[in-house]
Amino acid sequence: LIGRADFLGPQEWAPLDSAHLNRYYTTMKAAFQGVPGAYSEIAARKTLGPSCLTVPCNDFEDVFDAVASRRVDRGVIPIENSLAGSIHENYDHLVKHHLHIIGETHLRIEHALLARHGATLRAIKEVRSHPQALAQCSHFFARHPHAIPVSYFDTAGAARSLGEETGTHTAAIASIRAARLYGLSVVRRHIENSTDNFTRFLVISRTPVVPPLSEPAKCSISFTPVANRPGILFRILGVFSLRDIDLTKIESRPDPSSPFTYRFYLDFVGNPREPRTAKALDHLREIVKDLRLLGAYPAAHR
Amino acid sequence: LIGRADFLGPQEWAPLDSAHLNRYYTTMKAAFQGVPGAYSEIAARKTLGPSCLTVPCNDFEDVFDAVASRRVDRGVIPIENSLAGSIHENYDHLVKHHLHIIGETHLRIEHALLARHGATLRAIKEVRSHPQALAQCSHFFARHPHAIPVSYFDTAGAARSLGEETGTHTAAIASIRAARLYGLSVVRRHIENSTDNFTRFLVISRTPVVPPLSEPAKCSISFTPVANRPGILFRILGVFSLRDIDLTKIESRPDPSSPFTYRFYLDFVGNPREPRTAKALDHLREIVKDLRLLGAYPAAHR
Repeated sequence: LIGRADFLGPQEWAPLDSAHLNRYYTTMKAAFQGVPGAYSEIAARKTLGPSCLTVPCNDFEDVFDAVASRRVDRGVIPIENSLAGSIHENYDHLVKHHLHIIGETHLRIEHALLARHGATLRAIKEVRSHPQALAQCSHFFARHPHAIPVSYFDTAGAARSLGEETGTHTAAIASIRAARLYGLSVVRRHIENSTDNFTRFLVISRTPVVPPLSEPAKCSISFTPVANRPGILFRILGVFSLRDIDLTKIESRPDPSSPFTYRFYLDFVGNPREPRTAKALDHLREIVKDLRLLGAYPAAHR
Repeated sequence: LIGRADFLGPQEWAPLDSAHLNRYYTTMKAAFQGVPGAYSEIAARKTLGPSCLTVPCNDFEDVFDAVASRRVDRGVIPIENSLAGSIHENYDHLVKHHLHIIGETHLRIEHALLARHGATLRAIKEVRSHPQALAQCSHFFARHPHAIPVSYFDTAGAARSLGEETGTHTAAIASIRAARLYGLSVVRRHIENSTDNFTRFLVISRTPVVPPLSEPAKCSISFTPVANRPGILFRILGVFSLRDIDLTKIESRPDPSSPFTYRFYLDFVGNPREPRTAKALDHLREIVKDLRLLGAYPAAHR
């Protein structure tokens, strides 16, 4: 499989067509944070096709390093969750590493209760998972007080730990894919409190892929306002609003070089090939410094 | 001391003068998250005076509960750090609990290396602290590779753990105050990488205290835009910009009831007693829903 990917040649010569994401690189290598069965791995397979080779990494920094150092072709990182908010660390990595966002996807997070074969819901005493996943299933724990939630470093890791043990009194909250990978039974599906639990993932690459004009596209940019003067953010948003460009997300992160000043992150609907978007970016350069186009990519349907 | 506080009567009758913060309630009780010696406790003593009774809490939710249930008079919570960014959880608590921000302060975070008496820097093998404090002292660890960083749930808790043990090969990174409280030696001061490490803390109370017009004031507000329509944020910022009102901070958090829609948090320079600020808030009500004035308070000098 790896030979096939090499034969296709470096990613630099990829056609400027977002459809190549699943059409050409069937043996593409994609890094993700976590262990197999993690939601990030599911997002990678959703965007890049089920035949991509997923490469587990210890942390988000490793995912960026794996792409930058050519160990993999793509990285897939979570950027925000509809309940918990932004994964701020990944905003910092996007600016630090000179990589490009080439795609996005929204994954519905469906938590399942997994245990070794033979386990029954009534006999379960301990449920392991990431603290956020445990919190997102608090209604389940209220209904089943015999099941005690225990924090674990990640969801799929909690599932994997069950496979290495014996006994049927311990369960994990993770994905259905984790059950398949670690030979576990699905004791109960959809134990999450809210069906509105989505995570948005970004696909990162060493080279940009400008999306075709035929499909709706989004841009992600980052910048620092030229001065901390009153009304500067209003003027920055005016660049977009006066051109009827729709902002989909605004985020700010502290600038470590100067206390309580901020770097901004904007997502907006547009394609740098369109004159309107290109002119907005030119206009923006007049009032901000260190403008970075983090990527232009086809907008995901929800 | 508690008798004295009771004698002074309920906080509801406090004079509308921010100076009362340190003048009247010398025996005020203030909740903070962490153990004694935590940076939050230092911030509480800085704002409310060194004779306030500080009440440790396990988590931020407990701090809000302690104020709401009248167990304490004030809560002191960190809201943002100049290097790490916002403490997002506290934005959620501010909206959930109907309490009022009545003050703010900026505390310079100065990390010291603490150990039991007789310890020398060269003999230290393990250094315990909160992961963020360890990261903020990474230059120290690079210069002293014999000292291995070990994660601990909080900085002052790491210092306290040394007092319960014997031996001089283990150290902690925490405040100078923690050294005093737990009978430790300060092996090295100022081991933080950056002198630009500030945390902004808020003082919360059951009743609002409108600051006098004689000193510069700030307001913190929260709202949801009426619709997710293009340009709505531009129009919202226009409410302030067209009145020359200076925004000092903008933050957004996901609205759990609707995926990828947001609740906004703004801080701006102004006093609700001034017509300009009052009219801006009236104007804002026309284009946002669920507007909350989280508090008006004297602006801290940095």
